[in-house]
Amino acid sequence: MDKFFEARNVVVVGVSNAPGNLGRLMAANLMEFHFQGNIFLVGPKGGSFLGHKIHARITDVDDAIDLATILVPAPAVPEVLRQCGEKGIPRVIVQSAGFRELGEERLELEGKVRDLLEHYRMRMIGPNCLGVINRRTGLAVPFFPLAANVGAGPISIISQSGGVGAMMVNLLEAENLGLSRFASVGNKLDVSENDLLEYFARDPETEMILCYLEGIADGRKLMRITRETPKPVIVHKSNTGKCGAAIARSHSASLSSDDRVVDAAFRQSGIIRVREQREAVEVLKAYSLPPLAGNRLAVISRSGGHAVLAADAAEEYGFVLPPYPEDFFQLIREQSRANVISFHNPLDVGDVYNIALYRTLIEKTLEREDIDGMIHVHNYQGNLNVEESRELISSLGDLIRKYRKPLASCVFTTRDEFEAIKHAVDFPIFNDPREAARALKQVRDHRSLQTIPLAGVCPSDIDPSRARKTLEGLNPGPIPAERLAPLLSAYRIPCVEWEFADSLDSVTSAAHRLGFPVALKTAEPDVVHKSDVGGVRLNLADEKGLAEAYGEISRLGPAVLVQKMSGPGLEWLVGGRRDENFGPVVVAGLGGVYVEVFKETGIRVAPIEREEASRLVDECRGSMLLAGLRGDKALDRQALLDVIVRVSWLLHDFPQIRELDLNPVRVYEQGCLALDWRATVE
Amino acid sequence: MDKFFEARNVVVVGVSNAPGNLGRLMAANLMEFHFQGNIFLVGPKGGSFLGHKIHARITDVDDAIDLATILVPAPAVPEVLRQCGEKGIPRVIVQSAGFRELGEERLELEGKVRDLLEHYRMRMIGPNCLGVINRRTGLAVPFFPLAANVGAGPISIISQSGGVGAMMVNLLEAENLGLSRFASVGNKLDVSENDLLEYFARDPETEMILCYLEGIADGRKLMRITRETPKPVIVHKSNTGKCGAAIARSHSASLSSDDRVVDAAFRQSGIIRVREQREAVEVLKAYSLPPLAGNRLAVISRSGGHAVLAADAAEEYGFVLPPYPEDFFQLIREQSRANVISFHNPLDVGDVYNIALYRTLIEKTLEREDIDGMIHVHNYQGNLNVEESRELISSLGDLIRKYRKPLASCVFTTRDEFEAIKHAVDFPIFNDPREAARALKQVRDHRSLQTIPLAGVCPSDIDPSRARKTLEGLNPGPIPAERLAPLLSAYRIPCVEWEFADSLDSVTSAAHRLGFPVALKTAEPDVVHKSDVGGVRLNLADEKGLAEAYGEISRLGPAVLVQKMSGPGLEWLVGGRRDENFGPVVVAGLGGVYVEVFKETGIRVAPIEREEASRLVDECRGSMLLAGLRGDKALDRQALLDVIVRVSWLLHDFPQIRELDLNPVRVYEQGCLALDWRATVE
Repeated sequence: MDKFFEARNVVVVGVSNAPGNLGRLMAANLMEFHFQGNIFLVGPKGGSFLGHKIHARITDVDDAIDLATILVPAPAVPEVLRQCGEKGIPRVIVQSAGFRELGEERLELEGKVRDLLEHYRMRMIGPNCLGVINRRTGLAVPFFPLAANVGAGPISIISQSGGVGAMMVNLLEAENLGLSRFASVGNKLDVSENDLLEYFARDPETEMILCYLEGIADGRKLMRITRETPKPVIVHKSNTGKCGAAIARSHSASLSSDDRVVDAAFRQSGIIRVREQREAVEVLKAYSLPPLAGNRLAVISRSGGHAVLAADAAEEYGFVLPPYPEDFFQLIREQSRANVISFHNPLDVGDVYNIALYRTLIEKTLEREDIDGMIHVHNYQGNLNVEESRELISSLGDLIRKYRKPLASCVFTTRDEFEAIKHAVDFPIFNDPREAARALKQVRDHRSLQTIPLAGVCPSDIDPSRARKTLEGLNPGPIPAERLAPLLSAYRIPCVEWEFADSLDSVTSAAHRLGFPVALKTAEPDVVHKSDVGGVRLNLADEKGLAEAYGEISRLGPAVLVQKMSGPGLEWLVGGRRDENFGPVVVAGLGGVYVEVFKETGIRVAPIEREEASRLVDECRGSMLLAGLRGDKALDRQALLDVIVRVSWLLHDFPQIRELDLNPVRVYEQGCLALDWRATVE
Repeated sequence: MDKFFEARNVVVVGVSNAPGNLGRLMAANLMEFHFQGNIFLVGPKGGSFLGHKIHARITDVDDAIDLATILVPAPAVPEVLRQCGEKGIPRVIVQSAGFRELGEERLELEGKVRDLLEHYRMRMIGPNCLGVINRRTGLAVPFFPLAANVGAGPISIISQSGGVGAMMVNLLEAENLGLSRFASVGNKLDVSENDLLEYFARDPETEMILCYLEGIADGRKLMRITRETPKPVIVHKSNTGKCGAAIARSHSASLSSDDRVVDAAFRQSGIIRVREQREAVEVLKAYSLPPLAGNRLAVISRSGGHAVLAADAAEEYGFVLPPYPEDFFQLIREQSRANVISFHNPLDVGDVYNIALYRTLIEKTLEREDIDGMIHVHNYQGNLNVEESRELISSLGDLIRKYRKPLASCVFTTRDEFEAIKHAVDFPIFNDPREAARALKQVRDHRSLQTIPLAGVCPSDIDPSRARKTLEGLNPGPIPAERLAPLLSAYRIPCVEWEFADSLDSVTSAAHRLGFPVALKTAEPDVVHKSDVGGVRLNLADEKGLAEAYGEISRLGPAVLVQKMSGPGLEWLVGGRRDENFGPVVVAGLGGVYVEVFKETGIRVAPIEREEASRLVDECRGSMLLAGLRGDKALDRQALLDVIVRVSWLLHDFPQIRELDLNPVRVYEQGCLALDWRATVE
């Protein structure tokens, strides 16, 4: 990947002086960003642009080329790639649109491109992308004018949309956050977001990674890379709805993902998800500050109202505000004429008219061992205290570096002054105390979240080979109940005692073996909603009832399961399915009437360990019912967790299982039992 | 109130040329805002400021004065007010701090101020405030330099914090939203936020009202005023937490309110609550657009990525995106060279290189009858399409006016260009499609919310005089169960059949009259948690069981209620209390085990009508259990609503009831019954 970003000799293909030519803008960006390498231009019409000759063909360039950046009509791309290949160019960026995003008929063109890449062993970013930036070397090949005044810094960007990506660069500039590298990935025909992510994760100049993604090709790889890097990865994942999906397909050829799975996968792998650019900025600002070691904040505000807002926000986001010590107030009394002040954390210093003293108060606060971070609010404008205020704010950077604590400073002033002071300092300035508190919360929560490895230790007592045998020879579609039960049993997932039967005789003898009362359920594989079609009869107490029930149920077909009736318990559902982007996922939630009331299940990318299963269960409101309410005895939470873990491994080990549903799983004071099971295979 | 805002002759008291004098800034603001009236300055040291003589005493001013604005040390305020009174000044603004917010010992000073106001029939805003602005006349007396370049417009501001208020003015300027009037109310010793709200509600120049409040003195009046005005009232209510409360008390002498009651009251009266200034700006921008008549949006974006984001947001906020008609696409094909485009709503016009055509597309879209509003995204920067883009954006104002539909336009460009274009147009520009969609949602939801009058029609069959008699002569504290039941009965709140008894004989005969099985509950008024101390025995089937149970319970005292046992049903809790700021509130939620699982109750300012009770019930998750799940019969929702309405009237009619709790109220297929009741009076 380095060969893309560290290219020294770059050829820009598709440049002309015709009106509307966009290739020129790639060249213009290289010049605007003061590219430290050599620029070569190619366009069939020749001529020159800004003092650079435009060569007619790539092969006309004498020098060896590291990187070609190509913006020609899509049908012309293969020919250009051929020229690049002949010239021995190792890396290409194809900005041209007009591939898969226009529909199936362009897949052939993509195939040609793929063949050429393979033939010449070239790597490609794109097509249908904006290109890359390396802020340090000035390599900047997008065909859209960029904010070339963006500062150099620790943030690298991956964007699946050129437009959104360009605006992310603008945003960094606007917020005085520094850019390291940028890549717009487009249709990801060769290089994917994961390749770039892996590269940025290794890149020593990148400290934070911001991604805009419309589709996720290989979710598990994304999870692995992000879990393995200590760098914060912030993902703005769009394309969450039906309307967006249609446009995303035509825009970046991205298929939408199940958004709940995306949420779960991101949480499991420590990805910070944002839903708009403003949120991304908040998080980037927060990570631009030193880490928050604990949960104790101090607030100092020049405005009482903003002190109230800061306190509200600190409390809303779960921080504590330790009181200031008495000697601190003594200092204020001694060094200022303030007497209208009242002494709390948050501290309203509006009546301390000595702004030089503010810095001392802030430093004394950061020094304290019982303070982990700080929200600071300062307001000024017009001709009042302007110089002192600028000096105060500028001096905070040194305090942040000295004490290595996050000081989130909010400045309220006029628009122009705000922009000026924001760009004059090398730490983030916040717009609002609530934004500051939220940013600190984000960092606190993310840093304290221990992500649990996905593929941990598999339960040792499962029998995958027996399970494999059970699955052999199954037709695609629903698995017959009597074939599914042994599969569950191979993974030691506890099911109620059952027997398969297909005549009144065998039903009756099964019932005697199991012991009355029993339940009868149709085992005809084509019946999906058993209850709805009269395929379930419970609490059959004797032979007479059994015969009558079998008479009815066997109208659906002779095959039934006879099950022992089990006592009352708390009903959960445990199941899962195969997700398009993330593979097997496991699902759990309260069952029975609660399913309809709560409409809540938790979801995880499988397999998971017990600790993660425990988090999954706790996400479901009503998980407290497991603890035993109002003096009821606690139920066997561990047994439920165990079922969830085993189901997650089963789904993981056998990707041919498309869906699996244990509903209900009844949880008792001791153990739990699946009372009903169904699954489909591919 | 007009006399404050339309004052022509204004005296500024507390001006000197001493360093740090703040009085000067009041005078400077008047000049900065080009005050159209006459300015007089007063300060004991005399001299002059910016060409205006500083008089030593107010009585030295010859002219008649409409308004005095006073910033002198708090202890000197009464003497200044006396001078104002003697001079016959009808309105004063006291900016000085140092009153109640410093503690009890300053209450005496406030008393003096109050006496003087009464004596001289003066009205006062403050103390401890920033003062007022009338943007049209240039009356601007805050002692803090303001953004005098804020435009004139339809927004009036009430702020309980000077600092936050001043920043609201800045924000209007930054967002190019126009200011009408501003008032910082401070300690509200005389003029309150409600007085100002009433005035702004009547004021023809005010179309939107933005408030920052730390405390709410008279919640019911606030509700009445806001319900009666069609103008949007946006309230940023802070002071929601424990930490904030302490500082708010010392800052603006505000006591915190129960935040859930504030939420409910705001919703009941149509107040739009925001939690940070950014949210307020979103709402103000939304209301600066024409109203949204329906739920159908069109999206046109120059960037595919932003089209996806807009579509996601539109869907997230519940809008529908009707397809574009075929002739619309025909127009694009004819009039542009675009061929890479794909035709959806949202429409990505990035490949239409004819920006003049964008305006036509937007107009054709706004013309359509099946489109109620629109999100438009345009991006440009550098030297590409700048002139055409500015022209396009500037022309949208005319389209908004012509079609009277909200067109929320998002512009992505460089920081400087964004500020320039935002301030060049007379309609709001949005930062992000999600912000635009959220703003449109806000207006849609608020406009479609029918607020139900608080004091509607009282149920006709209640008997308040009987209730009054029941409450007579009660000691403060818990109401004995046998006195409370007749009170409930007077309001026709159905309770399970009961009898009071205080001996085994009377218990036994009561049980026979009611019919076994019965429940026994202690009726000793001092017992609060009956079950916890063994004061409740259920399902007593015969005399033997009864005698044994009474033997136990009577250890708490002889008084018991004997109740008929009632069948199983869905348990709700219905109750209420008197709120400090909003008076009686009614509370309802699922009862029994669900209380602990859901931890959710709904709340309303009482009294309410059945329709509002219905909304209250629907707010509780699990209200669907009333509808009868999985083939169960539906329960008597109407009976539950009726109980809630009656409880709300009871609490309303008898404010001496501090708390009332019916828990559980058991809901059956027919009717419902309170099984347990308790209340306390003052």
